[in-house]
Amino acid sequence: MIKSLVTTEGRLTEEDIVRWIRQRNEEVEVKVEQMPLAQLEGWHFDEDRSLRHNSGKFFSIEGIHVETDYGKVGVWDQPIINQPEVGILGILTKEIDGVLYFLMQSKIEPGNVNNVQISPTLQATKSNFTRVHQGKKPAYLDYFLNAKPHQILLDQLQSEQGARFLRKRNRNIIIKVDEDVELLPDFRWMTLGQIKVMLSYDNMVNMDTRTVISGINFSKYLTPLVDVNVMSDWGRSLIKSMQEQMGCFTMDELISWLSRQKAMYNLLVTSKPMKEIRDWNIGEYEISREDQEYFKVIGVKVTISNREVSSWCQPLVQPQQQGLCAFIIKDIDGVPHFLVQAKLECGNLDVMELAPTVQCLTGKYDVETNCPPFVLYVLNAPKNEIIYDTLQSEEGGRFYREQNRNMLIRVGDDFPLETPENYRWMTLNQMFSFLKFNNFLNIQARSLLSVLSFK
Amino acid sequence: MIKSLVTTEGRLTEEDIVRWIRQRNEEVEVKVEQMPLAQLEGWHFDEDRSLRHNSGKFFSIEGIHVETDYGKVGVWDQPIINQPEVGILGILTKEIDGVLYFLMQSKIEPGNVNNVQISPTLQATKSNFTRVHQGKKPAYLDYFLNAKPHQILLDQLQSEQGARFLRKRNRNIIIKVDEDVELLPDFRWMTLGQIKVMLSYDNMVNMDTRTVISGINFSKYLTPLVDVNVMSDWGRSLIKSMQEQMGCFTMDELISWLSRQKAMYNLLVTSKPMKEIRDWNIGEYEISREDQEYFKVIGVKVTISNREVSSWCQPLVQPQQQGLCAFIIKDIDGVPHFLVQAKLECGNLDVMELAPTVQCLTGKYDVETNCPPFVLYVLNAPKNEIIYDTLQSEEGGRFYREQNRNMLIRVGDDFPLETPENYRWMTLNQMFSFLKFNNFLNIQARSLLSVLSFK
Repeated sequence: MIKSLVTTEGRLTEEDIVRWIRQRNEEVEVKVEQMPLAQLEGWHFDEDRSLRHNSGKFFSIEGIHVETDYGKVGVWDQPIINQPEVGILGILTKEIDGVLYFLMQSKIEPGNVNNVQISPTLQATKSNFTRVHQGKKPAYLDYFLNAKPHQILLDQLQSEQGARFLRKRNRNIIIKVDEDVELLPDFRWMTLGQIKVMLSYDNMVNMDTRTVISGINFSKYLTPLVDVNVMSDWGRSLIKSMQEQMGCFTMDELISWLSRQKAMYNLLVTSKPMKEIRDWNIGEYEISREDQEYFKVIGVKVTISNREVSSWCQPLVQPQQQGLCAFIIKDIDGVPHFLVQAKLECGNLDVMELAPTVQCLTGKYDVETNCPPFVLYVLNAPKNEIIYDTLQSEEGGRFYREQNRNMLIRVGDDFPLETPENYRWMTLNQMFSFLKFNNFLNIQARSLLSVLSFK
Repeated sequence: MIKSLVTTEGRLTEEDIVRWIRQRNEEVEVKVEQMPLAQLEGWHFDEDRSLRHNSGKFFSIEGIHVETDYGKVGVWDQPIINQPEVGILGILTKEIDGVLYFLMQSKIEPGNVNNVQISPTLQATKSNFTRVHQGKKPAYLDYFLNAKPHQILLDQLQSEQGARFLRKRNRNIIIKVDEDVELLPDFRWMTLGQIKVMLSYDNMVNMDTRTVISGINFSKYLTPLVDVNVMSDWGRSLIKSMQEQMGCFTMDELISWLSRQKAMYNLLVTSKPMKEIRDWNIGEYEISREDQEYFKVIGVKVTISNREVSSWCQPLVQPQQQGLCAFIIKDIDGVPHFLVQAKLECGNLDVMELAPTVQCLTGKYDVETNCPPFVLYVLNAPKNEIIYDTLQSEEGGRFYREQNRNMLIRVGDDFPLETPENYRWMTLNQMFSFLKFNNFLNIQARSLLSVLSFK
């Protein structure tokens, strides 16, 4: 695993991979036409004006009413994606010439800004593989369904966007096989190091890949035989942070802090008929807020040349603003600490999840008023503190051209240790302790962990 | 903490404590009269026939519709207790003569079979201490609200009964203070060892005490200075199990197993107007199933001489059958392993929680058909294998005279290692690893952990 992490030239070069994705992009034709919501084939508005698939499966767009004493807005209505099934996001790996390779797919999703992105081997909902939509069986599915315990490198349930999904989760799974694996046309073997290189490009690696690889705790694989000198200084600092169980706070103190935060705030989410949700309009082509903020729901007809089904209709969620996700990282006693926020979002399974230092919509914050903590610092960070800054996409199967700016800011000694009560400094070891027990780190935090580069 | 655990004679003797509870029982008059539901003062049926407190706070009895592919019954309706607030269950501790003492309360609850039970220092909902019902401020509340991080020995969010409560949780907290604490009339200082002795009596220690002390991970307090020879052989075995991170399975394997179990089963819970719930009748005096199974909701008027409010009305849930909760424990490679079940219950926050080997209603299983796994083994266990067997009460503030048989069965080498797929053998260390990350062990499993005796 560590070798895979530090191997940035594999069986393909960086140029090969970029060319492969570009080429796939040129080969396929992706047509996304906006349609009147009522005319989406296979979908219907029910009596409450919720938008549902005719099979009763997949997902639906439903209304919720939210009441909370957290944040500035205490009561609101909104549409939300309800997809009660747990999906599988799976990556198949195999040792080739002594290095672990990941089987990655160039996958087209209708909402992607650039059509094709590097995706996990398998990305399937239960409806998908129980074949509700009569498509082909997803490739490599059986490897995951039949995986033996000793083949499983990672297997976690993790959440999706709490502001858009109602308690949605995916099973993130990485398996390792020994036998030969047929290499299908849309797939390539890559090292983890190569995936990390691809993450330095905008919108090249999809969200599902990011959430799966974010869960890999490298410190598990560090043996005395591993030569960390091939890593960068920064990589070795991160390894230190991954080994440090005791940071500014002990794990018990952090668990206590999070329990207190969760107990302090109420979150009441009740379903509400879509036709009655306040401040939102159901138009012919879109469901949107009167003030055009946050997001809207649109209906599209998608025509793609190579996917399980080549043409279908579906709703997509389109953001009205770009977002910003950033971690502030600071060396404390020589160990990098991440500034983590306890954040409440209406779709969270458990009230609050651990989020990046900054996670917000931008555009709203051009003026220096009313800004959440640390936003202005991040937006105005000195160049030498910015160690990562790219645009990354949300899941293109549900979101239409949604990209968020992902940043890592490494601050100096002057940056104050004191933080508001809902923030805590944590080592990577502590973040991974939370991460492996499901649902603690939100998808934005995990996405930022996935981009950490060690080489 | 360890000293407290093995100290079974403290400032009071065992007889003193039993006498104290008996005496308190004689001193107070507890009158519980059944009332027509519509006449409960302070409560009303809303338009859906949900039963709600007039303040909109406390809890309500609402209808839900459940669909799942787990278990034999796939679709049902039922009333459920909805109490979205996180309550506080807190125990205040203090070192006295070098031993940690727990400040315990003799608390009256209307549903208790024996009126008074040994309870945590503080047992309060947010409504309680924000004084919705205009009662007195709960005693010792400020110690908990103002606790400093270094005073907190334990601080976890834990679930309540998933078959009766909709995603209810409590903050379980133990704090240690150095200053003198005023000893109020209904309170006594006890060692943890003494609480354990009280747990060998039927219905003496209430559920809230059990859930709080179940979270204490003794292995944390084991230093070379601690003399484990004062413990029994069994106690030393348990300590071994608490230190053993690798059991039959690694933690990663167990997390993978649980992720798979959670991903395998769907659980859809939607609210449904009480007036429409199927198979249930709302009568004048009770809400019950047509076949009189499971439980019923009754309304009572309570009059008590010393409680925050001396007279009030409330609904209570009354069981129709007695329950059985049991762990099967087996030495594997010299280390005690507990047989843990992944169990789905409709009110679970996260689909499945870790439950005892056996958790079911009895009465139904007099005949040897249709019985869940291990029930018959436990009911017919040889005497020498039964290391614990008492009746313990559910929370008397919500449940009317509900008691469940709690058993620990220590099986021999002949007992098969193989189990159904939804069961796993775990060491105590592994169970505590899950326990500290909230919501993994259900309340029945925690209750059984709390009775483990080391002396």
